[in-house]
Amino acid sequence: MKEALLYEGKAKKVYQAKDKPGQLILDYKNDATAFNGEKKETFAGKGRLNNEISALIFPRLHEKGIETHFIERLSETEQLVHQTEIIPIEVVVRNLATGNLTKRLGIEEKTVFNPPIVELFYKDDELGDPLINDQHALLLSSVTPSELQEIKEKALEINKQLSDLFAAINVKLVDFKLEFGRLASDCIVLADEVSPDTCRLWDITTHEKLDKDVFRQGTGDLIEGYEEILKRLEAIS
Amino acid sequence: MKEALLYEGKAKKVYQAKDKPGQLILDYKNDATAFNGEKKETFAGKGRLNNEISALIFPRLHEKGIETHFIERLSETEQLVHQTEIIPIEVVVRNLATGNLTKRLGIEEKTVFNPPIVELFYKDDELGDPLINDQHALLLSSVTPSELQEIKEKALEINKQLSDLFAAINVKLVDFKLEFGRLASDCIVLADEVSPDTCRLWDITTHEKLDKDVFRQGTGDLIEGYEEILKRLEAIS
Ligand SMILES: Nc1ncnc2c1ncn2[C@@H]1O[C@H](COP(=O)(O)OP(=O)(O)O)[C@@H](O)[C@H]1O
Ligand SMILES: Nc1ncnc2c1ncn2[C@@H]1O[C@H](COP(=O)(O)OP(=O)(O)O)[C@@H](O)[C@H]1O
Ligand SMILES: [Mg+2]
Ligand SMILES: [Mg+2]
Repeated sequence: MKEALLYEGKAKKVYQAKDKPGQLILDYKNDATAFNGEKKETFAGKGRLNNEISALIFPRLHEKGIETHFIERLSETEQLVHQTEIIPIEVVVRNLATGNLTKRLGIEEKTVFNPPIVELFYKDDELGDPLINDQHALLLSSVTPSELQEIKEKALEINKQLSDLFAAINVKLVDFKLEFGRLASDCIVLADEVSPDTCRLWDITTHEKLDKDVFRQGTGDLIEGYEEILKRLEAIS
Repeated sequence: MKEALLYEGKAKKVYQAKDKPGQLILDYKNDATAFNGEKKETFAGKGRLNNEISALIFPRLHEKGIETHFIERLSETEQLVHQTEIIPIEVVVRNLATGNLTKRLGIEEKTVFNPPIVELFYKDDELGDPLINDQHALLLSSVTPSELQEIKEKALEINKQLSDLFAAINVKLVDFKLEFGRLASDCIVLADEVSPDTCRLWDITTHEKLDKDVFRQGTGDLIEGYEEILKRLEAIS
């Protein structure tokens, strides 16, 4: 199925799909990184869990009318997706204040954002993924003003759908990061991944963290939380 | 003329004006600070120069229909202004890329911004005046969405007027920082200062820096540049 390795990122390997022009295979890795790559560890099973979780989530979003790059699950750690030109903007949506936002702006932990906050970060590891405003985004990427508006609206719609999905498994979607990519047709679709690596997920009853913060903060076993998310998603699939 | 010292900032002392409710006296100091207060020095004459310069600039803006807090020059280092409730957002307008923007976003030095870039920073020394987006600004201050829009438009109009004014003295307005304040009437006006402390000013012919960067970068005598700006402004006043 796989041809040339096009790129190896921090969390996934990206291959050209054999005999399928315009399609990629994403192979999810077991590596976890945090604080712009400063903290690094490998967790057996993480690649599989994130692949399975995102392969459950993307079709759910598709059902709700949200276009994504996802085509199909291929194996325990692999999925087939449409190749896109990734827009180098990380779109973060926040329902509750936590993490770097509280430190950056002195906002109290767990402040509720209604409407949710949408933040843009320039996807550039060397620069440390800095926060940017709309004008910076237009300067640093190929998106037009109306596409940027569209991306922010899509991010809010995805927030609604994901919040509902996670609520159905007794999990609060606290915040998350999205990447969008441009198809050959020029359409902009949701790309990359939606997983406990990219979402903050708190058990609604126990407030337990079921996401990468467990690794960032060194408070326990990351895999347990990811397994719990997968188990609960499978139960409603 | 002066009553209670209300506040001492990094660059000015703020006094209640005697028998003039709602009016303040700003007394410009000789202190220069940079890098969020890490670098500090005193320059004899700086307070006078910034007071004289801003006392020439504010009336020019007023003539062009831009409302400001400025009432009148009182002495070599003092000016009378309307008391406002300062909106804790520093509004930066950039015509040319330089300074922290180039480092933050990897944008090439002297890239021309047309339209100019408007950036918002949360005015909070402890947090290091972090960059914010519009949603953060609404969360962290009392401004409404339409007031925020108004502030950004005013900043761009001020940029036009100041750029013309400085061009008339053979100086390029590279970028600058503004603060706005709310009057008792609820109107939002330009407050604080407009001086070589808050503007990057480059001689158009020699490209010499006539602003606080000379102090930030330790490349020469700050006072010389400030005196040059005052001399040229006086010549056209
Ligand atoms: N559909 C897609 N088309 C092209 N590139 C993609 C697609 N989906 C994700 N990518 C990119 O794959 C790369 C690998 O992912 P990841 O390991 O998460 O990288 P990173 O270290 O940049 O976070 C990233 O650059 C990501 O933007
Ligand atoms: N018209 C005004 N009304 C109230 N406060 C003002 C006005 N103009 C400026 N200020 C405030 O005066 C204070 C002193 O100025 P400065 O020394 O530059 O302070 P800082 O150290 O915060 O830069 C600042 O907090 C500034 O926002
Ligand atoms: Mg990634
Ligand atoms: Mg100041």
